[in-house]
Amino acid sequence: MSRTVYVNGTYLPEEEAKVSVFDRGFLFADGVYEVTSVLDGKLIDFHGHAQRLQRSLGELGMTSPVTMDELLDIHRELVTRNDLSEGMIYLQITRGAPADRDFVFPGPDTPPTLVLFTQAKGLIDSPAAEKGISVISIDDIRWGRRDIKTVQLLYPSMGKMMAKEAGADDAWMVAEGFVTEGTSNNAYIVKDGKIVTRHLGNEILHGITRAAVLKFASEAQMEVEERPFTIEEAKQADEAFVTSASTFVTAVVAIDGVSLGDGTPGPVARRLRDIYIEASRKAAI
Amino acid sequence: MSRTVYVNGTYLPEEEAKVSVFDRGFLFADGVYEVTSVLDGKLIDFHGHAQRLQRSLGELGMTSPVTMDELLDIHRELVTRNDLSEGMIYLQITRGAPADRDFVFPGPDTPPTLVLFTQAKGLIDSPAAEKGISVISIDDIRWGRRDIKTVQLLYPSMGKMMAKEAGADDAWMVAEGFVTEGTSNNAYIVKDGKIVTRHLGNEILHGITRAAVLKFASEAQMEVEERPFTIEEAKQADEAFVTSASTFVTAVVAIDGVSLGDGTPGPVARRLRDIYIEASRKAAI
Repeated sequence: MSRTVYVNGTYLPEEEAKVSVFDRGFLFADGVYEVTSVLDGKLIDFHGHAQRLQRSLGELGMTSPVTMDELLDIHRELVTRNDLSEGMIYLQITRGAPADRDFVFPGPDTPPTLVLFTQAKGLIDSPAAEKGISVISIDDIRWGRRDIKTVQLLYPSMGKMMAKEAGADDAWMVAEGFVTEGTSNNAYIVKDGKIVTRHLGNEILHGITRAAVLKFASEAQMEVEERPFTIEEAKQADEAFVTSASTFVTAVVAIDGVSLGDGTPGPVARRLRDIYIEASRKAAI
Repeated sequence: MSRTVYVNGTYLPEEEAKVSVFDRGFLFADGVYEVTSVLDGKLIDFHGHAQRLQRSLGELGMTSPVTMDELLDIHRELVTRNDLSEGMIYLQITRGAPADRDFVFPGPDTPPTLVLFTQAKGLIDSPAAEKGISVISIDDIRWGRRDIKTVQLLYPSMGKMMAKEAGADDAWMVAEGFVTEGTSNNAYIVKDGKIVTRHLGNEILHGITRAAVLKFASEAQMEVEERPFTIEEAKQADEAFVTSASTFVTAVVAIDGVSLGDGTPGPVARRLRDIYIEASRKAAI
C-alpha cells in the first residue's frame, strides 16, 4: 500500500509526492528537517522538535509556512491516514522554489516548501537495541554549524557507508582529537558510573532525545559530565551509547574493533533506554 | 514563455519539472552539479565540465545515468529547444530516489536522477564585467571536500547574502588565515605583474575556468604563482579578480571596503577576460 505524503498543503500518494527541480532544498541543500518518533500512534516530544525546528529556521532566516499547531495537526493527520502505530514522521522545510537558480535568497514572494512523510519501523524491539551496535571513528569534516539541523547530510551518509564497509554499524566523528557525535545521533561514554557526553555548541546537533535523556539521568541520580572526550577514552570506558529520536538510547558495544566491557549493552544504557521509553510513552501526544 | 527542462530522459515544461521528495538530492544533499556556459548558442569547455563531473561522481561512488556523449546531446537539445544564445546550462546528478529515506546508500536498483535546465543571461556585457565587483571576507566553514562539486551550497549561499547585507557583491572565504575561494568562483590577486591564486587541493573547487585562465596566462607570458594568500596581502595587491564558468574573468575592485588600485578593473584582469572570451568562443562546440 502506498503511503500518503504531505507536500505543501496537499496529501498525496507517495508516487506523486514531488517538488520542483528549482526547489532550494534540491539545488542548494537550503533546508532543515526534523524526525519525530511515533509510539502507540502518538508523537514523542513533538514540542521539543517543533522548538528546535523554529531555532533552525531562525538561524537561517527562514520561516515555516504553517504554525506549530498546524504542524502538529499535519503530524496527527499523517499518523491517521497511514495507520502508523510505530515509526517516525520526517519533516522538511526548504527556502522554496523560486523561478530560477540563484545563490541569493529568494524574496518573500517565494513560499517555503513543507514536506512530511511517515516511516513505519519497529523502534522498541530491534536487533540494535538488543545486541548494541559497533562503531568506527572517522574524521569529522562537516561544516561548522552542525547545531542547525540542515539537510547537508552527505558526509554523515558517507560515514554510515564507511562503517558498513568496515563491518560496523555506525561511525563516531572526531574533530580536533575529540568525538563530536555519531552520523545521526549523539554519543556518550560511561566510566565508573559517570556519563560523559560532549557539551552543546556549534559542533554538534542539540539532540532532543539527548536533552530528555540527560534530564532523566539527573532525576535518577546518575552523574553526568558534559565535556569532550577522545576515542582513546571511549575505548577504555565501561560502556557507551548513542541517543536519537528514532533509536532512543542504544548501547555501543565496540569502538574501532575494541569491545567495551563484556561486549553486550551495559547497565546504564539499558536503564536509560527503559526510563526514556517509559517516560516518552506516558508523555506522548 | 516556459523553459523546457530535462528530467530523467524527458523534456518537460519547467512547471512540470519535478523530482520525488525521496530524492537523495533533496533529503541528503547527495548530488553533484556542473554549470556550462553558452555563447553564440555553443558550449564553452563542455569536455572540461564533463571530466570534472565524472571525477565528482567517482569521489562519491556515484554513476551517471547517461554517457558523456549523451550528456552533450542533451545540452545541445536544450540549447535548441530553448533557443538559448547566451547563458548557462545547469546539470545535476543525484543518487536517485529510493523507496524510503535511509543514510545508507541505495542499491543498484535505484537509478541516479539527472536534471538539466537552461538559464538565459548576458555573460559578455554585464555591470560586473564593466565595473568590477566588491567582496567581503568571511570565515570558510564549509565541509572538508570542496573539491567535489556537491550541492551542499547552503553556506556559499549564506555568504552571498552576508555580502549583500554588507553592501558588497560577493564574499571571499578564509580558512586558517588564507583565502580559499569566492562563494561560486576561484580567487586571484595580482602584485607586481604576478598572478597569485590558491593551489589545488581539497580546500577549493578545481575550477574549469581556472584551469583555462591559468593556461592562457602562461601562454601570454604572465607569471603565475599557485599558493595561499591572506586577505591582508589581497588588500595590498595591485588588482584582484575571480573566475567561474558563468562570469569568466571578473575584476575585484574592493576587498573589505579597501579599494584596489584606482578602484576600476585592472589591466591583467581585463586582458585575461578578453583572451578567455576570444579563445572560448573559438573552441566552443
